[in-house]
Amino acid sequence: MASRALFALTAAAAFVLASCSSTANNSTVDTTASKEQSPNIIFMIGDGMGFEFISAYRYAMSQRGTGELAPTPFDDLLVGAATTYPDDDTWVTDSAASATALATGVKSYNGAIGIDADKNPKQTLMELARDKGWSTGAVATVQVNHATPASFFTHHPSRNLYNDIADSYAQQVSAGGWSFDVLLGGGHSYFKRDDVNWLPQLEQQGLQVITELEQLDDVSASPVLGLFADKALPFAIDDRPGRLAEMTKHALRLLENRSEQTGKPFALMVEGSMIDWCGHANDIACAVHEMADFAAAVEVVRDYLADNSNTLLVITADHSTGGLTLGQGGEYAWYSEKVMGIQKSVEAMATELVQLPKSAWRDYLTPELNLPLTDSQWQQLESVTIDEQLKGRDKLKPVHQVLVQIISEHTRTGWTTSGHTAVDVPVMAVGPGAEAFRGYIDNTDIAKALLKLVR
Amino acid sequence: MASRALFALTAAAAFVLASCSSTANNSTVDTTASKEQSPNIIFMIGDGMGFEFISAYRYAMSQRGTGELAPTPFDDLLVGAATTYPDDDTWVTDSAASATALATGVKSYNGAIGIDADKNPKQTLMELARDKGWSTGAVATVQVNHATPASFFTHHPSRNLYNDIADSYAQQVSAGGWSFDVLLGGGHSYFKRDDVNWLPQLEQQGLQVITELEQLDDVSASPVLGLFADKALPFAIDDRPGRLAEMTKHALRLLENRSEQTGKPFALMVEGSMIDWCGHANDIACAVHEMADFAAAVEVVRDYLADNSNTLLVITADHSTGGLTLGQGGEYAWYSEKVMGIQKSVEAMATELVQLPKSAWRDYLTPELNLPLTDSQWQQLESVTIDEQLKGRDKLKPVHQVLVQIISEHTRTGWTTSGHTAVDVPVMAVGPGAEAFRGYIDNTDIAKALLKLVR
Repeated sequence: MASRALFALTAAAAFVLASCSSTANNSTVDTTASKEQSPNIIFMIGDGMGFEFISAYRYAMSQRGTGELAPTPFDDLLVGAATTYPDDDTWVTDSAASATALATGVKSYNGAIGIDADKNPKQTLMELARDKGWSTGAVATVQVNHATPASFFTHHPSRNLYNDIADSYAQQVSAGGWSFDVLLGGGHSYFKRDDVNWLPQLEQQGLQVITELEQLDDVSASPVLGLFADKALPFAIDDRPGRLAEMTKHALRLLENRSEQTGKPFALMVEGSMIDWCGHANDIACAVHEMADFAAAVEVVRDYLADNSNTLLVITADHSTGGLTLGQGGEYAWYSEKVMGIQKSVEAMATELVQLPKSAWRDYLTPELNLPLTDSQWQQLESVTIDEQLKGRDKLKPVHQVLVQIISEHTRTGWTTSGHTAVDVPVMAVGPGAEAFRGYIDNTDIAKALLKLVR
Repeated sequence: MASRALFALTAAAAFVLASCSSTANNSTVDTTASKEQSPNIIFMIGDGMGFEFISAYRYAMSQRGTGELAPTPFDDLLVGAATTYPDDDTWVTDSAASATALATGVKSYNGAIGIDADKNPKQTLMELARDKGWSTGAVATVQVNHATPASFFTHHPSRNLYNDIADSYAQQVSAGGWSFDVLLGGGHSYFKRDDVNWLPQLEQQGLQVITELEQLDDVSASPVLGLFADKALPFAIDDRPGRLAEMTKHALRLLENRSEQTGKPFALMVEGSMIDWCGHANDIACAVHEMADFAAAVEVVRDYLADNSNTLLVITADHSTGGLTLGQGGEYAWYSEKVMGIQKSVEAMATELVQLPKSAWRDYLTPELNLPLTDSQWQQLESVTIDEQLKGRDKLKPVHQVLVQIISEHTRTGWTTSGHTAVDVPVMAVGPGAEAFRGYIDNTDIAKALLKLVR
């Protein structure tokens, strides 16, 4: 924590000095010097991370009743909020339109990947960085060809074209150059499919392809493509904690190495992808654990910033998901410790339940939920009809819904939708250029300010 | 808008210059000079105004489908967010504990008015200002003895002691001094009751008491007590628009006049009180109109700031109410224009409906709701049972609930509670000292920073 406090002081002092010197020397700026001083850019996106997810995370990490709040890595970074509406008539964006706005500075329609409303490809932050000789990278906990990372590297009329997006990454390599130096996340099954297996070809062209997180320790230089799951990684609550932090740490190491060779900055996008997925599932424990996973990655980045002051960190969300609120049914309370008592995602519990006889449900759920279910709640749960004809999430849905309702009642967590909301999202920034992100801005303004820094 | 832009530039320049001079001259600060330079303080509280209410207001003022956002007076003021938890084990504050935190810098229990958890009275911003010879005032759209204004001037173990709180205001006068120069809002029935009528005595002691907003034009000097309703004023959507702006304008005029005489600054608290009430009612059209009423008051203050640079404006909320979100039922849309088509508060509509035969409901509601109700929604509404034995809101409740559900379905507005939530609230600030409110802070930190400025 000492280094954190020191860092905050240093950053504040740097800002004041920067303000003074820009006021004093505005007319005598040496543009050559400022070109050389372009900062590294670390752009972190909490997918679905509305303000309420940060509040939930903070209270969940704190001890209810003590009056003391746990510190979070976000506390001294908040500078404003962003509107997120897409370029259609809905006000409510999806992750593709918002990622396109955040990557290109251009509004588009829901579903668009790196293209405008007329389906023209728009230059992305990573493409511009590449053009200028920067090193580039992205880290996500979902497949690397999912909406957010895809919008920083590719151009497609629909986010659903997962195979096409994977092909784009691979074809960029075939066309003579990596679009990335480091790309870490899930998505193995899209690169090695029945119709095509890109991996041998990519390796032949000099790209290291790894499939286990542990292999990152042995990667000493980029380019590297890490595909650590067939599609998305498991939820943090069901998986190893700190997986995003681990990937982020290695991405920073590899990008810094390459930047030292090229003498040019790097741009890295880090997505806490599955905050959004827990929001869609209306699963509060899942969401808080994804927030913790994202916060740990922010800690890694802040440690990096402490030693590398010429680095800009910007954190935002693409939208908020689920209509989360910390208050339900009129009671003035939110039971954070009950949220933290839950051991698994609702999806994992529902998946287990539909495979068990109902007589075994109480024994299974009691230690996983850690909630004092009422008799009527047990009855409600055990009276759910499971359609054995259905598969996947459709089969889980009735159990999932009742579990969400029970958890919401016990913890006093509110949800209003299985989709997204139009509510503005937090914007955080620290480092050179951070002042451009202050106050209420639009998500396209975030990209525009970042693009300006790539010289 | 030209003066707004100029003002923003001036404020930004002033901040940079202030940063530089404080860096350069830290060891040679003239404390006498800084005493003389204490700024006026205007503290605006949107009761219940979470981030989502600002998003709702912005989108409701904008034209859906054009891609253009309407500007709001909040846009360039946002500097951070505040935690609002009370000093008990709930994480979810009520308006009394939060107003006490905002007025005194001390956490207390839900219900507390200007006292700590041990029921000791704590000095409030207005009391300190009074001690230092400042002029003081408050404006609210609810009764002046309601939780928020009461916590700035009085000390009571429970917010429900409305008569005691009114007595406190009156007894302060009897004890030899006004606690306020300007106090405007509702609450007439608490000052003139069956058991006591304070008004003749207060007038005898030199306090002007007025009961109509129009009378403010004729008030040329403080002290003045305006009691413009028996309890709260009507909802803005059902009443005259801009009533808070009107009161705020006169309060500023009267406080400035007195400050010119005393040579001391003033402190004014302005509460957009009924944003919260619309939140409790889960009434989105009502909430947006209260936001417009509050925003108009912010415009008045910003016009004042443009001509009076030694004034600090801080805007925040005590908590968010209702668990509002702009997304419901899985659809990626929020229908702002449908919200703006609604002509009355749900309470006003329900009050009318319970007095009409059901055969007249469609004719009454069609132009008030402006929504294409489905047959099943009409049936749902007309099948509501009204208990003629009940009175007031209890009688309205079943109709109210169905109206809220119908409006939520059509506009895709989500609500999760009839109470408050624990989600962090926006903090906005501009003027001398504004930098103290940046980032994530606690609601008590807002009061502490304000108290420091009162010298």
